[in-house]
Amino acid sequence: MLLHLSTWTEVEAYLQQSQGIIIPIGSTEQHGPTGLIGTDAICAEAISRGVGDATAAMVAPTINVGMALHHTAFPGTISFRPSTLILVIRDHITCLAKFGFTKFYFINGHGGNIATMKAAFSETYAHLEDLKINNCQQVQCQVANWFMCGSVYKLAKELYGDQEGSHATPSEVALTQYVYPEAIKKAPLSSEVASGHKIYGAADFRSRYPDGRMGSNPDLATPEHGKRFYDLAVEELSKGYLEFVS
Amino acid sequence: MLLHLSTWTEVEAYLQQSQGIIIPIGSTEQHGPTGLIGTDAICAEAISRGVGDATAAMVAPTINVGMALHHTAFPGTISFRPSTLILVIRDHITCLAKFGFTKFYFINGHGGNIATMKAAFSETYAHLEDLKINNCQQVQCQVANWFMCGSVYKLAKELYGDQEGSHATPSEVALTQYVYPEAIKKAPLSSEVASGHKIYGAADFRSRYPDGRMGSNPDLATPEHGKRFYDLAVEELSKGYLEFVS
Amino acid sequence: MLLHLSTWTEVEAYLQQSQGIIIPIGSTEQHGPTGLIGTDAICAEAISRGVGDATAAMVAPTINVGMALHHTAFPGTISFRPSTLILVIRDHITCLAKFGFTKFYFINGHGGNIATMKAAFSETYAHLEDLKINNCQQVQCQVANWFMCGSVYKLAKELYGDQEGSHATPSEVALTQYVYPEAIKKAPLSSEVASGHKIYGAADFRSRYPDGRMGSNPDLATPEHGKRFYDLAVEELSKGYLEFVS
Amino acid sequence: MLLHLSTWTEVEAYLQQSQGIIIPIGSTEQHGPTGLIGTDAICAEAISRGVGDATAAMVAPTINVGMALHHTAFPGTISFRPSTLILVIRDHITCLAKFGFTKFYFINGHGGNIATMKAAFSETYAHLEDLKINNCQQVQCQVANWFMCGSVYKLAKELYGDQEGSHATPSEVALTQYVYPEAIKKAPLSSEVASGHKIYGAADFRSRYPDGRMGSNPDLATPEHGKRFYDLAVEELSKGYLEFVS
Amino acid sequence: MLLHLSTWTEVEAYLQQSQGIIIPIGSTEQHGPTGLIGTDAICAEAISRGVGDATAAMVAPTINVGMALHHTAFPGTISFRPSTLILVIRDHITCLAKFGFTKFYFINGHGGNIATMKAAFSETYAHLEDLKINNCQQVQCQVANWFMCGSVYKLAKELYGDQEGSHATPSEVALTQYVYPEAIKKAPLSSEVASGHKIYGAADFRSRYPDGRMGSNPDLATPEHGKRFYDLAVEELSKGYLEFVS
Amino acid sequence: MLLHLSTWTEVEAYLQQSQGIIIPIGSTEQHGPTGLIGTDAICAEAISRGVGDATAAMVAPTINVGMALHHTAFPGTISFRPSTLILVIRDHITCLAKFGFTKFYFINGHGGNIATMKAAFSETYAHLEDLKINNCQQVQCQVANWFMCGSVYKLAKELYGDQEGSHATPSEVALTQYVYPEAIKKAPLSSEVASGHKIYGAADFRSRYPDGRMGSNPDLATPEHGKRFYDLAVEELSKGYLEFVS
Repeated sequence: MLLHLSTWTEVEAYLQQSQGIIIPIGSTEQHGPTGLIGTDAICAEAISRGVGDATAAMVAPTINVGMALHHTAFPGTISFRPSTLILVIRDHITCLAKFGFTKFYFINGHGGNIATMKAAFSETYAHLEDLKINNCQQVQCQVANWFMCGSVYKLAKELYGDQEGSHATPSEVALTQYVYPEAIKKAPLSSEVASGHKIYGAADFRSRYPDGRMGSNPDLATPEHGKRFYDLAVEELSKGYLEFVS
Repeated sequence: MLLHLSTWTEVEAYLQQSQGIIIPIGSTEQHGPTGLIGTDAICAEAISRGVGDATAAMVAPTINVGMALHHTAFPGTISFRPSTLILVIRDHITCLAKFGFTKFYFINGHGGNIATMKAAFSETYAHLEDLKINNCQQVQCQVANWFMCGSVYKLAKELYGDQEGSHATPSEVALTQYVYPEAIKKAPLSSEVASGHKIYGAADFRSRYPDGRMGSNPDLATPEHGKRFYDLAVEELSKGYLEFVS
Repeated sequence: MLLHLSTWTEVEAYLQQSQGIIIPIGSTEQHGPTGLIGTDAICAEAISRGVGDATAAMVAPTINVGMALHHTAFPGTISFRPSTLILVIRDHITCLAKFGFTKFYFINGHGGNIATMKAAFSETYAHLEDLKINNCQQVQCQVANWFMCGSVYKLAKELYGDQEGSHATPSEVALTQYVYPEAIKKAPLSSEVASGHKIYGAADFRSRYPDGRMGSNPDLATPEHGKRFYDLAVEELSKGYLEFVS
Repeated sequence: MLLHLSTWTEVEAYLQQSQGIIIPIGSTEQHGPTGLIGTDAICAEAISRGVGDATAAMVAPTINVGMALHHTAFPGTISFRPSTLILVIRDHITCLAKFGFTKFYFINGHGGNIATMKAAFSETYAHLEDLKINNCQQVQCQVANWFMCGSVYKLAKELYGDQEGSHATPSEVALTQYVYPEAIKKAPLSSEVASGHKIYGAADFRSRYPDGRMGSNPDLATPEHGKRFYDLAVEELSKGYLEFVS
Repeated sequence: MLLHLSTWTEVEAYLQQSQGIIIPIGSTEQHGPTGLIGTDAICAEAISRGVGDATAAMVAPTINVGMALHHTAFPGTISFRPSTLILVIRDHITCLAKFGFTKFYFINGHGGNIATMKAAFSETYAHLEDLKINNCQQVQCQVANWFMCGSVYKLAKELYGDQEGSHATPSEVALTQYVYPEAIKKAPLSSEVASGHKIYGAADFRSRYPDGRMGSNPDLATPEHGKRFYDLAVEELSKGYLEFVS
Repeated sequence: MLLHLSTWTEVEAYLQQSQGIIIPIGSTEQHGPTGLIGTDAICAEAISRGVGDATAAMVAPTINVGMALHHTAFPGTISFRPSTLILVIRDHITCLAKFGFTKFYFINGHGGNIATMKAAFSETYAHLEDLKINNCQQVQCQVANWFMCGSVYKLAKELYGDQEGSHATPSEVALTQYVYPEAIKKAPLSSEVASGHKIYGAADFRSRYPDGRMGSNPDLATPEHGKRFYDLAVEELSKGYLEFVS
C-alpha cells in the first residue's frame, strides 16, 4: 500500500489496523562510471514496495537524497548536510506520529545515511516528548539496511567474492539493472580499483577513489543477479518488518 | 535525461553543453476523499520528465514532500516546516551549483510550496555568494507551476468551470489518473463543497474544509482529460524551460 | 492606538474588546537615486497608523527591516535572511498570541517580503500549536500590501501609466514625500530605465538595474499625489482590516 | 543623517568620509502602569538622532524589539528570543559591513539587551571573518547605554534619589514625556513598590513585580526633566561616538 | 558531592533534600606565555568543588569550553560560538530541570562567558516554559564569577596593584599554580604589556595584545597566593550559593 | 601533553612537529545503581591521557556531556541533543583546524555518541571546506571507542562472560574503580537484569531497563580488573593513534 497512491480516508482506515509504516531512504550520489546516481534510492524504493506488498504495510514516498557529502566532488551528487537530514527525518516522523503511526521502519540504501539517521531518531524521540504527542512513548524507529541482510551479503560473497567491494558494488548495481533494465550502463573500468581508505572529506575521497568505486567490480552485475538480491532482501526485510511491528 | 538514471560521467558530459536542470517538487498531502496523497509530486514528476524528454534537459529526483502544514490535520499528510524546506532546497542547489549548474527550473505541483520556495531561493543566492562559489552570480532559480500554465488553466475552465475549485481539483486528479490509471479512486462526494475560506492553521483548515476539498468536484476527472493536461503542461513548460536557459 | 505609546494596562483593556493588531512591515533598501532607503517602512508605518486611527485598532511598532537580499549590492540596504525574518515574525506573533491577540494584520510596504511572510505564518501556526497556546486555532495572519490595493493601483496607472514601474515607483516615492516633505530628493535620472528582468541574486540585480530603479520614473512623484495614495490606501485597508477581524 | 531618509547614493558618498553608523536599539515591553511600552525604543531613537545631528553620523532605523522575555507576562510586550536577536544583529552588521561600514555604535535603551548584544557582536565578528569580508578585521561594535551615562545617572539621583529604581524609572519616563508630550499617562501608583528581586523567568518576574515597576516612582517624571536627560545623554554619547570612530 | 562520581540513585536521594546544583564553567583559551590554556576551567572546577564540599551541594561536570572567540588567533584556544554555547547551557539546564533541579549556580572562570550565559538563561527560561516542565517557574540560574568576589579582588589589588591586569592575571595564574603545582610555567615576559584596548574580533585582539596578556604580570603569581585566592573564593561563593538556594 | 596544562606558545611549538590531537569524549548518564554517572567521561579521559603520555600526543579537555537522551529518565543524566552535539564538535574541530591541527582522534567512552559523532564529522568536513581553511582537505577525524578494542573485549569476555552486558558493564565500572578507588559504590543488585531490548526514547528505556543496567553485573568489577582494562586500552589505542597520524 503506497502512501502516495492512497487517499487520506484510506490512511485513516489503515491506522485502525496497523501503526506501522515503511519509509524508503536512499541517496543521490555517484556510483562509479557505470553505477546510477540514483542507485541507493532505487534499491530502497523497490525493496520497500516489495516488503509493503508482502506485509500489507503502508510505504511512504522515498527520501531520495541522503547524507552523501563525501561524494560531492563527483558531478551529480546531491547531499543534505547531516543537520538538514535530521530535520527532514524529524518532520516526516512528527507529522506521521501525530496521526497515530508509531512504528517507523526505514529501509535504507546507503551506508552513509546510517549515522545521521540514528542521530535523527534520538533527536525526534526527544522532540515528540517535548510536544507531548499522544503515544509518543510508543514511537519506535528502525534502520533496515537491505545491503546488510545476511542473505544478501552471503549471495554477494558467493557471486563476487572480494570484487563486491563497498561502494558501487556489483550487488547494488545488479539490483538497479533488475529494476531499470533500460538503464544498464557500460563503460571501461580499470581492473585496478582503490580500496581500504577511510572516508573523510569530499576532495580527499575523490583523490583516493578517482573513479568513485571502492574496491568493487560492477561489471560482474547482471539483472538476473539483481532479481535474486531483490527477492532475498524483500524476504528478509519482510520478516524484519513483521517482527518490528508485532 | 534523468539524473538518478545517469552516471556521474554522464553528468559531467552534460555540463559541457548545458547548465540547466529541472527539479520536480511536489507535496505529500491529502487531496480529498478520492485524490491521491501523492498528487502534487506525481504531477510534478510526470511533467518534469516530459519536459526533460522534450528539451533534453537533466531532471533531478523529485522532492516528494513540501510545505503542507495546513493539511496536517488529515491523516497521511507529511510536511516540512518552511525552515526545513528552505534548507532542503538550499542543499540541493548548493551541491549542484558547485558542479557548474546555474539554471534551476523547479516544476512545482503545489501552491503551498511557492512562498517557501521563493524564500529559499533568496536564502540560497546569498548563501552561494557567502561561499564564493564559482559563477555564483549566474545562478538563477525559477518556480514553474504546471497548474498555473495558461493553457492548463483554460482547459480546466472549459471542462469544469467553477467545479475546478482550488484543491483536489479535477485537473490534478485527472493528471494522476492518466499517470496511474490503476489507482483511480471512487468515493461518495458530497455535492456541497466548502470554498472561499482563507488558509490559516491545520485545525482551522480541517474545520472549514471537512473532506479536504476546496470548492472542487474531482468526480469530473478522467484519464483522458489527464492526458490533455499533461500534454499542455509539457508543451508550455518546455517552452518556459528553453527560454529560461537560453 | 499605538502599542508603543500605550501602557500594558491599556493593552489589557484593549484585549477585552478586540483581539486584532496591525503590524507594519517595511524594508530598508535602496529605492533608486531619489527614493528614500526607508521608503517601504515609511509607507507601511504611515498607512498602518492611518488605518489604526480609522478603525481604533492597535498598531504595533514597525518592523523596519525585511527581506531585501536582492538589493544588497547597493550601499545602505539592510536585509534579513529569510530564515531570520521567519524567526522575527514568529517571535512577534508568539508573544502577542499568548496575551490573546488572534488577528494579525501585517500592512506591508515591500513586495520582496511577501514570500517570506507567508512562510513565516505557516511556520508560526505550527509553532503555536506545538506550544498548545490557548486559542491557537483562532490565530490568523494576513498580508495586506498597500501598493496592491485596487484603488492605489488604479490611481498609479492614471497618473503615471507605464512609468509607474515596479521598484522605486513614483507612487511610493510620492507617499514618502507626503509623509516627509523635508526629505524630497532630487537627482538626475536617466530617461532610460531598465525593466523586465527577473530578480535573482544581488550582484545580478545591480548589473541589470544599475541605478536601482525598475522601470519607474520617480520624478513624476509629488507630495500631493502622495496624499491621494495615502488616503486611498488607508480607506481600502481599513475596510480590509475590519473585514478581517469581524 | 538618517539612513531611512537617505538615498543609496548619499550613503555611498557618506562612506567616503566616515565608516561609522549609529544603530538605535530599544525594546517593546511593559514599563509599569504609566510607562509607555515603547519607552526603550523611543529613548534610544531620540537620543540616536540627537547624536547623529551633533556628530554628522549616519543613524540606522531603530531596532524596536529587543530581549524582554522576562516582561512577557505583561500584555503588550514583544520580545525576541536571544537566539533570534543574535541573528537580527548579525544580519544588520553583515549587510552594512559589506559596504564598508566598520564602526557600529549601538545606542541602547534597555538593560536586558546588553548580554545578548555582546553575544551577538562576538558571533558576528567570527561570522564576518568566515565570510572573509574586506576589512572585517576593522569591524568594531560598541554598546552605548544612554541610561548608564555618568551625567544621566547623576541627574537621576539628584532628582529622584532612591525612587529612580531600575525599571519604569522616572528618568526614562521623563524622556518619553519630552519626546511624546501627547502621550503622558496617569494612573494610580501604589506607594509601595517591589524592588531588589533578581530577574529570572517571566511568570516569576510578574509575581515579584506585580505592576511591572522595579523600585521606581515614575510619578516624579516631567517633560522638563526629560529634556535635561535628553541633552545630557546626547552630549555624552556624542563624545562617546566621536571617540569610538576616531 | 560530585555528579560524575555519584550514581543515579544518589542523585535521586539528593533531590529529596536539595534542588540546587553548581555547574563550573570555564574556557579553553590562551592565557599569555606562562598561563595555562585551561586556566579558567581549572579555577572554576577547583572552586566549585570547594564550594560543593563546604555546602554539601551537588557539583556537575565542568563545561570546559566557553565563549573565547576573541582569543582564537592564539594556537590552542577552543571556543564555542555564542549560539552554540546557548544550546549547550540550555541542554544542561533542561535535562536537570526535568528531574527537579531548580537552582542552577554557575561558577564561572571567564569574563567572556558572562554575556552569553545570561542570554542562555533567558533563552532557557522561555524554553522550559514552552515545554511546560513541572516547576519551570521555580527555575533560577545565577552566574557567580569567582574573580569578581570582593575578597578576591581586594587581595589581588593588595598583592599586585595595577599589575593584576585583566587577562592572564597573576591571581588566576596563582590559583592554577596552587591546583597544579606540577604545571608552573616560566617564560620571559616583556615588562611592557599592552592594556586598555577594547575587545573586538580575534585578529584585532592579537594585534593589540601580541603575547596574549592584558595589562598583567603573571610573574608575580605564587602557589601560596593561589591558595589564598582559592580559600577566599570558596568562602565567599559558599555563602553566595547558600543564599541563592535558601 | 595536556592542552589545558599547556601554554599557547607550547601549542605553537607542538604544531611544528605534529598536527594530531586526542579529544576525549564521554557522557554524563546513569550507569545503574552502582555505576558512576561520569563513567564514560572518566574512562575516556583516563585512557586519553594514557595514550597521550605513550605517544607524546596533545590531549584536549574532555567533552564531558554527550548524546544520552535515552538515559534522561534517570536522575542526573545530562545530554545534548544530537543537533547540539554536532555544533559542539564542529566548533572544537574548526578552532583547532585553523591553527593547523589536521588529525582529530576522538577517544570515546559512550556507544550512544558514535552516530552523532560521525554525523558531526561529515558536517564539519563540509563546513571547513566552506570556510576555505588552509589544509582543510587534510583534516581527518576518527572515533576510537576504547570499549570496542579487541583486547578489551576479549578480557571482558574472559572475566565476565555474558555478565558483561552492554551498559553499566563490569569492565567500565572496573575502570572507574581503578581511576577513582575512593568512589566505589555498593548497592543491592537484582540478579535478574533486563537485556536484549532495542533502544528508543527515554521513557521506553526506563520501562524496559528499570535499574538502568543492560544485561550487566557490575558487582564483578574490581579496581585490579580496571587497571588491566586501562593498560590494554592504552596500548591498543596508542597504536591506533600512531597509525592514524602517520
